[in-house]
Amino acid sequence: MSPAVATNGFADTQKEEGPSRLPPVYSELQSNRLNHSPPLPSILKSSFKVVDGPPTSAAGNPNEIANLFPNLYGKPSVSLVPGDSEMKGHQSLKIGVVLSGGQAPGGHNVITGIFDYLQERAKGSTLYGFKGGPAGIVRCKYVKLSTELIYPYRNQGGFDMICSGRDKIETPEQLKQAEETVKKLDLDGLVVVGGDDSNTNACLLAENFRSKNMKTQVIGCPKTIDGDLKCKEVPISFGFDTACKIYSEMIGNVMTDARSTGKYYHFIRLMGRAASHITLECALQTHPNIAIIGEEVAAKKLTMKNVTSHIADIICKRLELGLNYGVILLPEGLIDFIPEVKQLIAELNEILVHDVVDEAGMWKRKLRSQSQELFEFLPQAIQEQLLLERDPHGNVQVARIETEKMLIQMVETELDQRKQEGAYKGHFQGQPHFFGYEGRCGFPTNFDANYCYALGYATGVLLHSGKTGLISSVGNLTAPVDEWTVGGTALTSLMDVERRHGKFKPVIKKAMVDLEGAPFMKFASMRDDWAAKNRYLSPGPVQFVGPFANDINYTLMLELGAQFPY
Amino acid sequence: MSPAVATNGFADTQKEEGPSRLPPVYSELQSNRLNHSPPLPSILKSSFKVVDGPPTSAAGNPNEIANLFPNLYGKPSVSLVPGDSEMKGHQSLKIGVVLSGGQAPGGHNVITGIFDYLQERAKGSTLYGFKGGPAGIVRCKYVKLSTELIYPYRNQGGFDMICSGRDKIETPEQLKQAEETVKKLDLDGLVVVGGDDSNTNACLLAENFRSKNMKTQVIGCPKTIDGDLKCKEVPISFGFDTACKIYSEMIGNVMTDARSTGKYYHFIRLMGRAASHITLECALQTHPNIAIIGEEVAAKKLTMKNVTSHIADIICKRLELGLNYGVILLPEGLIDFIPEVKQLIAELNEILVHDVVDEAGMWKRKLRSQSQELFEFLPQAIQEQLLLERDPHGNVQVARIETEKMLIQMVETELDQRKQEGAYKGHFQGQPHFFGYEGRCGFPTNFDANYCYALGYATGVLLHSGKTGLISSVGNLTAPVDEWTVGGTALTSLMDVERRHGKFKPVIKKAMVDLEGAPFMKFASMRDDWAAKNRYLSPGPVQFVGPFANDINYTLMLELGAQFPY
Repeated sequence: MSPAVATNGFADTQKEEGPSRLPPVYSELQSNRLNHSPPLPSILKSSFKVVDGPPTSAAGNPNEIANLFPNLYGKPSVSLVPGDSEMKGHQSLKIGVVLSGGQAPGGHNVITGIFDYLQERAKGSTLYGFKGGPAGIVRCKYVKLSTELIYPYRNQGGFDMICSGRDKIETPEQLKQAEETVKKLDLDGLVVVGGDDSNTNACLLAENFRSKNMKTQVIGCPKTIDGDLKCKEVPISFGFDTACKIYSEMIGNVMTDARSTGKYYHFIRLMGRAASHITLECALQTHPNIAIIGEEVAAKKLTMKNVTSHIADIICKRLELGLNYGVILLPEGLIDFIPEVKQLIAELNEILVHDVVDEAGMWKRKLRSQSQELFEFLPQAIQEQLLLERDPHGNVQVARIETEKMLIQMVETELDQRKQEGAYKGHFQGQPHFFGYEGRCGFPTNFDANYCYALGYATGVLLHSGKTGLISSVGNLTAPVDEWTVGGTALTSLMDVERRHGKFKPVIKKAMVDLEGAPFMKFASMRDDWAAKNRYLSPGPVQFVGPFANDINYTLMLELGAQFPY
Repeated sequence: MSPAVATNGFADTQKEEGPSRLPPVYSELQSNRLNHSPPLPSILKSSFKVVDGPPTSAAGNPNEIANLFPNLYGKPSVSLVPGDSEMKGHQSLKIGVVLSGGQAPGGHNVITGIFDYLQERAKGSTLYGFKGGPAGIVRCKYVKLSTELIYPYRNQGGFDMICSGRDKIETPEQLKQAEETVKKLDLDGLVVVGGDDSNTNACLLAENFRSKNMKTQVIGCPKTIDGDLKCKEVPISFGFDTACKIYSEMIGNVMTDARSTGKYYHFIRLMGRAASHITLECALQTHPNIAIIGEEVAAKKLTMKNVTSHIADIICKRLELGLNYGVILLPEGLIDFIPEVKQLIAELNEILVHDVVDEAGMWKRKLRSQSQELFEFLPQAIQEQLLLERDPHGNVQVARIETEKMLIQMVETELDQRKQEGAYKGHFQGQPHFFGYEGRCGFPTNFDANYCYALGYATGVLLHSGKTGLISSVGNLTAPVDEWTVGGTALTSLMDVERRHGKFKPVIKKAMVDLEGAPFMKFASMRDDWAAKNRYLSPGPVQFVGPFANDINYTLMLELGAQFPY
């Protein structure tokens, strides 16, 4: 490849570990985890049958879904039950796997799960890894996975075995090239490891191949640290458990620091774009003084001023108790939940397509008065970020707004005001934090490592049984791994439609925080206590051995009806 | 206490857990560590004698030290050897302990070490904890420590059992009040847990009490995550091991993320003000593409342009290998090591005492031409930070300069230049990080937990033996805990003098990174390999059980002559 073209992880490894290849280096924990065999649910260790459930429908607008997926709509979900195997014809398979979207701990174990299934139950099979995400399918960039190649990634974090990408396979041209690739490689099956968008895309591919009488089956796998791909049959997306535990380790440490120093309010922004699951889970794990849940902000139609005042109220209350420090968690996507901010951003996007930001600020006259008022209310640095941080389409890059710094400044202004009014006598010092990249690529917890391995192994089963258009499903997760259930859920049954550009587009709707769900209700019942008192918890670093090394996260625990220990 | 006055950790706990006291909440790891008994060196578990070494001298300027410490100078250091105890007269003691300076993991174990020693070997003793650092001694703010009070802090991070503070006891007024406090409490001994400044202060207190024929002995204990309090007899300061391992966990995760995404250069600023030990240790643990060691920058008299070019060179080289991502570590105090920047800051401090920053920038004419050139070379945001971020004395608050962002912008500018010259064809994207508070208050590693417990227990021994003016010393640290040596080092033997305001002031000089020491030499021998190739290591989260849970850090290992495994 041309030296001036940057490539990503996997290809780089090939390139740099050329003839003068040095042995790879591993830390002790890396080595320890490399040699760790994740336990499998017992159903996968014995003889099983793949049994169809009843015909399925759709999450919404079933007629539209039936129109979009004529070959797949209505097909049953499946489960594995003990019994004699009835595997389809040929023993060996040619399978392709692709990672799609952002990193999530455990992705490598999905791949090794598929690989090990094939090695153990479909000898002579071939597993191809498409490189750099779905673009690898379109461009036919792949690597044939082998025992040696896979080994360095067992139970390791990251996605660099084959790397990922954010492309979709949507246009007629892309679909055509995908068809050529799977034909060229003679694929019996394709596994798509991704979030809601990627699994929707997987279903479209399955439909497309089926409609052309192509043999290639497509199975999806639920990935995202954000935790927003879930439903009854798919209790949790992988990576969420690990990311939340890594963030909670750091939040707990910051809490101890806050209590030791006694003078800072730490505003911690957490990754997790559309939904606030990560913030909610971390709150349940660490008991911060305040955790802002975006879905609640949206439901109550709160303004920036509401949010700022709420924080200031708690700061004042704590001061009366002699506490001049605290910890506040906020979701990365907070801005997206505040209606007046969304309105401002929409107007900015519109105006700045055409207008130039003039020094005198005349451009602001094009804002509606509510938006102009809000814009002026925001700190200078944030105004600049709103104007300057734009993506190639000219839209504000909301993710780049340092929301924690924005809130600190707004709270400072509010408290200065209260000081002048004599209502606040303290000295407020905010400390901003953003926990993101550190949590996305950590070693998968035992839960994620086991969950992913089972998900991967299960996709092998589903493909071997001739299924297509399903998402790998592992359940009964509050029980020991032995007792986990295994199956596949019809992707069409998770679908609804949205209108985009005058057409109906299928979507798997993101699962937002349910304000009447058990995790949020638990949080809501305890937060006042957490606000005034210090009920901080320090979960500490993830442990891989010991009595609680297999604990699952609280969100899952509560949603599956288990008891919250605090 | 007045509700409007903020107090810190310990007092808050008392206040909020009033009559309606709720049981404290612990995470599972917290509970697990609470019930963990750190092993003691076998010498401390049996009968021992405290044996004097030969008379000691000083690290430098012995005459001046002798003048400043007439009662202490020349006194021997001591070691514990097996044998029958010859403990001084009375069995029970009244001891005070104080935490001084910034947090460091393990501090609580020093206190519990003292407490347990007294419980086990000097029954009927009393241990007082002074609250909020040395100011607690001056103001006589203390708490009587009990089994129940201490229990929730065993093997836990943070300093909130009694909290710390940055005051020193220096002025005649402060010394007088300190004397009154120790007299009022009838203290046989005082333990000062702190860094180089605090231990120097401890020695001055010891000298002062001795000169007035007061019975109160003073023993120091070596604390600092920065790792800059060390010498032959005091091989390492506590807290360094834990902080470096927590930072390395996160650095390793970011490396995996970098390799998975393939497009960012992560610039990671690390805590550790005056010396670059933390950056060096983290480099040895994770093998970043670049680690900037401040002491090397100072020794080679590098300029900002040199540093920027060096980074840009490596980025260009990596691009030729197809690698468009990387990880760069930099010490928080980097700016302090660059002569031209120190010069600029000194001039700014001088000018801005008298002059106002005028819009037209006329004030810049007062800068020397080299300084003005450098100032113009710096990014706008950094210029503003230099002008605005000033402490109450009007000095630039160097710690608040976001050095990682500064370097990203400067590297970007340099690469843009090279692009115009056709020497660089890539697309550079920098990602800034600051790892600080998360590492300062984590659970102490087994090493720090054991080291601190032994240090604390040893101070009990030293006080019980009638010693004063020593710093608790535990050695032979590459061996199992059983074989650790225990003693006390004469603080005067670590001293030198500095001239300040025309007077000689005693100091324990900070241990800077020794460019001819084993850790740096090892780093220097491997860094070119790390720069071009990816030799990344992921140490992962600190483990408390398992085969490597008692590993010590590489700095200590190399300095004590052990083999580096990579």
